[in-house]
Amino acid sequence: MKELRWDLFWGEWVILSPERATRPNEFLKPSKCPFCPGNEDLTPGEVFSLKDEKGQWRVRVVPNLYPAVEECEGEPVDLGEFSFRACGVHEVIVESPKHEVDIDEMEREEVLDILKVYRERYASLKKRYPFVFIFRNYGPKAGASRPHPHSQLIALSETPPRILYLNERLRKQKEIYGVCPFCKLLREELEKDERVVFKGKHFLAFVPFAPRFSYEVWIIPLRHNPMMEEAKEEELGEFASIYQKTVSAIKKLLNFPSYNVVFHNFSTGLDADSFHWHCQIIPRLATLAGFELGAGVYINPSSPEEAAKSLREAL
Amino acid sequence: MKELRWDLFWGEWVILSPERATRPNEFLKPSKCPFCPGNEDLTPGEVFSLKDEKGQWRVRVVPNLYPAVEECEGEPVDLGEFSFRACGVHEVIVESPKHEVDIDEMEREEVLDILKVYRERYASLKKRYPFVFIFRNYGPKAGASRPHPHSQLIALSETPPRILYLNERLRKQKEIYGVCPFCKLLREELEKDERVVFKGKHFLAFVPFAPRFSYEVWIIPLRHNPMMEEAKEEELGEFASIYQKTVSAIKKLLNFPSYNVVFHNFSTGLDADSFHWHCQIIPRLATLAGFELGAGVYINPSSPEEAAKSLREAL
Repeated sequence: MKELRWDLFWGEWVILSPERATRPNEFLKPSKCPFCPGNEDLTPGEVFSLKDEKGQWRVRVVPNLYPAVEECEGEPVDLGEFSFRACGVHEVIVESPKHEVDIDEMEREEVLDILKVYRERYASLKKRYPFVFIFRNYGPKAGASRPHPHSQLIALSETPPRILYLNERLRKQKEIYGVCPFCKLLREELEKDERVVFKGKHFLAFVPFAPRFSYEVWIIPLRHNPMMEEAKEEELGEFASIYQKTVSAIKKLLNFPSYNVVFHNFSTGLDADSFHWHCQIIPRLATLAGFELGAGVYINPSSPEEAAKSLREAL
Repeated sequence: MKELRWDLFWGEWVILSPERATRPNEFLKPSKCPFCPGNEDLTPGEVFSLKDEKGQWRVRVVPNLYPAVEECEGEPVDLGEFSFRACGVHEVIVESPKHEVDIDEMEREEVLDILKVYRERYASLKKRYPFVFIFRNYGPKAGASRPHPHSQLIALSETPPRILYLNERLRKQKEIYGVCPFCKLLREELEKDERVVFKGKHFLAFVPFAPRFSYEVWIIPLRHNPMMEEAKEEELGEFASIYQKTVSAIKKLLNFPSYNVVFHNFSTGLDADSFHWHCQIIPRLATLAGFELGAGVYINPSSPEEAAKSLREAL
């Protein structure tokens, strides 16, 4: 049984999932790729897919073979005072039939397809789970265990503390300033114009004021919209293009690093009036070490303003 | 100038230290080791050392050549609304004259010397800084850039949020249960006896209930003592020995992984009545990926109870 434990001292959630220890690392020991067309029988049954006119899937959603959480019947069960059954869903979104292709190398339509699948999964899973989180690990230093391009989705039966703390801070800021903190942030970044990487019609890509990681980029919708499900097709199309440009600039500038992408979408517990859905692209250049893990303070060996300038030039 | 920025949304501190980008990685490109005897002129001036009867240093403290923070004259300066000068001290504690030796391979007296130096640095720096943090990165996957055994110390002019949040939780628990939460934790771990790795006269080494990392071990003094400076020599001696045993068991069991050690000692902002100084030993087996970095939930592919059992057997 998967278990979720709560660390009372540090306020953190840990999911215990011993089965994941047996997960193979395809970078170390390649085998038949379960995400390639023709090998569909190597994954659990398809949950959802987008297909072309010939019936070949273009984006395919399957349950994770080594899930961190599990679907539970009925109400979540307390296993002890600070321990719960880890109820949820862990899916893999296979982004392309091609074995080796990254976001920046795809056609824009292919990236748009991935986003449409994200949108469908959010819409479908939020009916059953208050927290649905999509992320993408690219390259071994970002925790990927397979080269075939894919994202992951984890839905949980409760919203985790990091997201609830975010909400507390957003609410507080909204009280102080009287406006959505994301709307305010975007206005200020545009006014200062020191950290902007790309300004589109619908989205702003910029290096945040206090990035935990060097060359981290956030892409946020300019209009107040807390949910990717409510993004219009035109908006998603522009997002796809900015996402591709940013990944491409990061690779050019930083010599093809591993990177993570995390999508923050509206979840139960967040305040719709003070939140925009957005993504964070996180190059993994350095290793998190003792100071980060212990004191929780991130040492960033770069200037956000210089990083934004270099990324703009690399676009 | 080093800058400390505050992320208003996620509540995190980031230290911007662009000079650290030029820091050489000795694992990738070895050169003359600045921590070896005879090369003392390659480091900034010695801050403190323990010497043997012949005048040869056994443990040596020097300023970090690529510091994350800097000493400031007078009061800390606000650089903007959420930006401050990163005032503090960043030191390296060279643990041994030997170039390649780890904690478990040293004599117990040598480990005790390192702890005595920690104690001296805490006592000396806490007069000037409210937050003094010691940590140890061992191996490239733990963020170490040099093989010569060393710890690092970062002192800051303010206590970081992660530590203040810890304190909030500890105070709250003390209110609820009426006893120091660390005293309570130790009593419960001893009673349950499911996660104990080693019980000494003065310390308990155990796998915590909700470990963020597989095979993580905490070593905590059994008597209520918030400060390593107040540990008696006999206590430190036992700590040295348990620390060695634990590192040795981790290496034996996990095939010599990289690991971090973080020391949590009393800081301004903590409540002395609800805190014990302690260390956490963190093997770095997996890479933190998108779910950890974005949702803040840690996936641990091991059972803490099984991990403790295996570590006990490997002792």
